[in-house]
Amino acid sequence: MSAVSERVGDDGPAAAVLAVNTAFYEAIERADIDALERLWVEDGTAVCVHPGLPPIHGHKAVLRSWSAILAATPYLQFVLTDVTAEVRSGVAVVTCSENLLSAAEGMPDTVFAGGHAVATNVFRKDGETWRLWVHHASVVQRRDGG
Amino acid sequence: MSAVSERVGDDGPAAAVLAVNTAFYEAIERADIDALERLWVEDGTAVCVHPGLPPIHGHKAVLRSWSAILAATPYLQFVLTDVTAEVRSGVAVVTCSENLLSAAEGMPDTVFAGGHAVATNVFRKDGETWRLWVHHASVVQRRDGG
Repeated sequence: MSAVSERVGDDGPAAAVLAVNTAFYEAIERADIDALERLWVEDGTAVCVHPGLPPIHGHKAVLRSWSAILAATPYLQFVLTDVTAEVRSGVAVVTCSENLLSAAEGMPDTVFAGGHAVATNVFRKDGETWRLWVHHASVVQRRDGG
Repeated sequence: MSAVSERVGDDGPAAAVLAVNTAFYEAIERADIDALERLWVEDGTAVCVHPGLPPIHGHKAVLRSWSAILAATPYLQFVLTDVTAEVRSGVAVVTCSENLLSAAEGMPDTVFAGGHAVATNVFRKDGETWRLWVHHASVVQRRDGG
């Protein structure tokens, strides 16, 4: 995972939040469900909206959805662009463009599909740790003929 | 606008947040750009993701986008379902399904298009007032033969 651009500073609370945001995408790339489990708030308030799907509520259901996605996707790599972070009183909002390389199940390993989604990730401070509260991702439509 | 179901209580901070969430959709239905302007946080941290589009940042740019949408849409009505609200330390996350009736420009007034989107709306308490900080909406794909 590489973050091409950031519109925020290198230190302070925004940096701590962005480190967790990076850890989130790296955990997906490694298909590391244990790391994903630790990154999310551990209660029923967790919300995850995968592209084109309705919201999933609660830590257990959200993690089940990631397990299914990771099991069906042998290869997934993110290049994040346009990363922004705003921190207010224990809650932070990160937005980023997710530029995806993936290999879908049943396709030759040499076939990669590119994709472009945008995500809003909301983090909540839990003691000294920032945890993912909300992940909402949606596909960006390419406009023909601009 | 009508909210068919809520998974939250009728009083307390969640009720105050949901009242602002309702006011947001009613302002869109009335094409009331002044009301929308008052509902959003009044600084550069406002974030709005319309379905299929990249994020728009900042109060002025977000309001311009709504002006363009309202000018191009003679009729827009929401029925909200699956409304949930979680409130933590001055920030609230609302999720809802937006079931839309709209009339697109250039079509006969009797032609209405239905649509189904989901939204994550994040509100921030500004003094005694809850204001919209983030609106991220995305279209839900219907599954064929599912």
